[in-house]
Amino acid sequence: MDDINVAVLGTGGIGRRALDVSTHKDWFRPVAACDRHGIALDHTGLDVAELLDATEGNVASESQTRTDGGSAIKQTGKKRGVAASTQARSTETPIDDVIAESDEIDAVLIALPNLEHDFIPRIAERFADAGYEGVLVDVLKRSRVIGMLDEREERLIDSGITFICGAGATPGVLTGAAALAAQSFVTVESVDIWWGVGLKSGYEDNRGTVREDIAHLDGYDIETARNMTDEEIEQVIDEHDGVIEFTDMEHADDVLLERAGICDAADVSVGGILDVRNDEKPTTTTVSVTGTTFDGERATNTFELGDATSMAANVNGPALGYLKRGVQMNQNEVYGVFGPAELLPGF
Amino acid sequence: MDDINVAVLGTGGIGRRALDVSTHKDWFRPVAACDRHGIALDHTGLDVAELLDATEGNVASESQTRTDGGSAIKQTGKKRGVAASTQARSTETPIDDVIAESDEIDAVLIALPNLEHDFIPRIAERFADAGYEGVLVDVLKRSRVIGMLDEREERLIDSGITFICGAGATPGVLTGAAALAAQSFVTVESVDIWWGVGLKSGYEDNRGTVREDIAHLDGYDIETARNMTDEEIEQVIDEHDGVIEFTDMEHADDVLLERAGICDAADVSVGGILDVRNDEKPTTTTVSVTGTTFDGERATNTFELGDATSMAANVNGPALGYLKRGVQMNQNEVYGVFGPAELLPGF
Repeated sequence: MDDINVAVLGTGGIGRRALDVSTHKDWFRPVAACDRHGIALDHTGLDVAELLDATEGNVASESQTRTDGGSAIKQTGKKRGVAASTQARSTETPIDDVIAESDEIDAVLIALPNLEHDFIPRIAERFADAGYEGVLVDVLKRSRVIGMLDEREERLIDSGITFICGAGATPGVLTGAAALAAQSFVTVESVDIWWGVGLKSGYEDNRGTVREDIAHLDGYDIETARNMTDEEIEQVIDEHDGVIEFTDMEHADDVLLERAGICDAADVSVGGILDVRNDEKPTTTTVSVTGTTFDGERATNTFELGDATSMAANVNGPALGYLKRGVQMNQNEVYGVFGPAELLPGF
Repeated sequence: MDDINVAVLGTGGIGRRALDVSTHKDWFRPVAACDRHGIALDHTGLDVAELLDATEGNVASESQTRTDGGSAIKQTGKKRGVAASTQARSTETPIDDVIAESDEIDAVLIALPNLEHDFIPRIAERFADAGYEGVLVDVLKRSRVIGMLDEREERLIDSGITFICGAGATPGVLTGAAALAAQSFVTVESVDIWWGVGLKSGYEDNRGTVREDIAHLDGYDIETARNMTDEEIEQVIDEHDGVIEFTDMEHADDVLLERAGICDAADVSVGGILDVRNDEKPTTTTVSVTGTTFDGERATNTFELGDATSMAANVNGPALGYLKRGVQMNQNEVYGVFGPAELLPGF
């Protein structure tokens, strides 16, 4: 396969780790990376090490007391965020700047927080309006975003876009595992996704993710979580001694498995335990698929991630894996919106 | 998705069970099924129940003492095999008869024993020679067959054929699971596939498979196994008290994972335990993928099949799942030879 020219939108936790993982993939050529104040661009391939060094602990977000929900991480240096890289320049229109270069971009990894539900769908729309032909990949989590992408599918198809949505850990590799585990069965009665994340050393990188997770807790929703100060987030974490258990989360695994025809969205449950004070996972990440075989046996197939695999590894490896497959689809003129399970064996 | 018109070549254990599973798939329209002496054909869809009833325990093979390696199962009725169905007729040229109808066939499931290595590759060639545009799927096991398919890839592409090879259990769903489990890692050091099969109630249906497995034992090879009488096979089974352990089997998972770029073929091991006298699996079928993450952690991800899932369920569900995906590829004019791991997220 030829090298794939990739732009990474967002250089927070996910964007930076995706670039880090990409250095292990000889087919991945990172040609653009941006955050809200800057863009690094080099069509011959960015120097990822320089970019990561320059931006580590230096993310272009607002102050600690901001209420717009972005991840607020300490900022150092004169230039904030990606603009601190020698390969970057400041800009007030980073996404437009990427779109302007998109003729030479095969795939775009959208690693932006999606606290407004239609934020990523609207970004897809902007690429479509510009006539982009290529792949968009995101690692979104929320079920309702999928419908918003579907509403825009015709425009994406007209442009020549292959959008792979929910391509991280869950949804993502675990959705794929559920689709594969379902293959033994003719009817699937339940899919249970149970994750464990230990975040101690990655906490600074993942404040946005933690905030999104808190929105799933009883008594919180996406609006309240977005309007919480970082101090309030810390207080919730303190109240739980750093270990927060989530059940019945709105994760898009449900609609993505339903659209692949594997089971009803209502038969999918997602939950897990987040420990922000330990690197050890508080529980083993497991997908359990229970169903009935053609010969009438009821059984459960399972997929388990080794406890030493970090959330970052389990989000970004699959994101790049789905991106690679997406580029093949795009080259074969397969356009539209696809979830991970739709790339796996059919049901 | 529109209905998929499928022909099943071979109505032994795998072919019959594939037809059985297909009755649970509303997109699957079985339009042809053949064995060495007959063909059932109905472009509006075969009556699978009638076909299975008519052929159960009635397989068109030679006598108990035959030495050509087919599965010899008791024969009843005047007409042997599929010809016993009211939907079938006798023929001396069953595969040519299917090829003659192939304009109206979207996919062909090759469920024939492959005791000569190039048998299935040669069948693919015959479809290509006839200008077939569609999908071929097989559930072959042996590594060396893949190369023989590759040698014919240009001819398959010219014809418009999408060949999905090794699409059963192992290789097949377990190869796919390994490809998915690898996504957490940037380097994969080992893939261990370990299967358990309990065959008591399915033994009559699976004599061909048992014979193929025996070829993997120390002191046997594919030639000696092919030339054994059924009595000699029984004797080997007796010597092992019905429970035979296999290690370092030549299963195509190795080359199929290598061609997907996940690891070297040499890093893949396949083994398992077959118990022909119990339905209970003697061991749990497990795929273990050990690798290193981008952040330097070594871990093992695992995929386990529930013990109550039969070999038949784990071969035929995935075969139909890969077939369905193959038809989408074919409709998108993606032609050539593909292993299961190449349909999954890239590496």
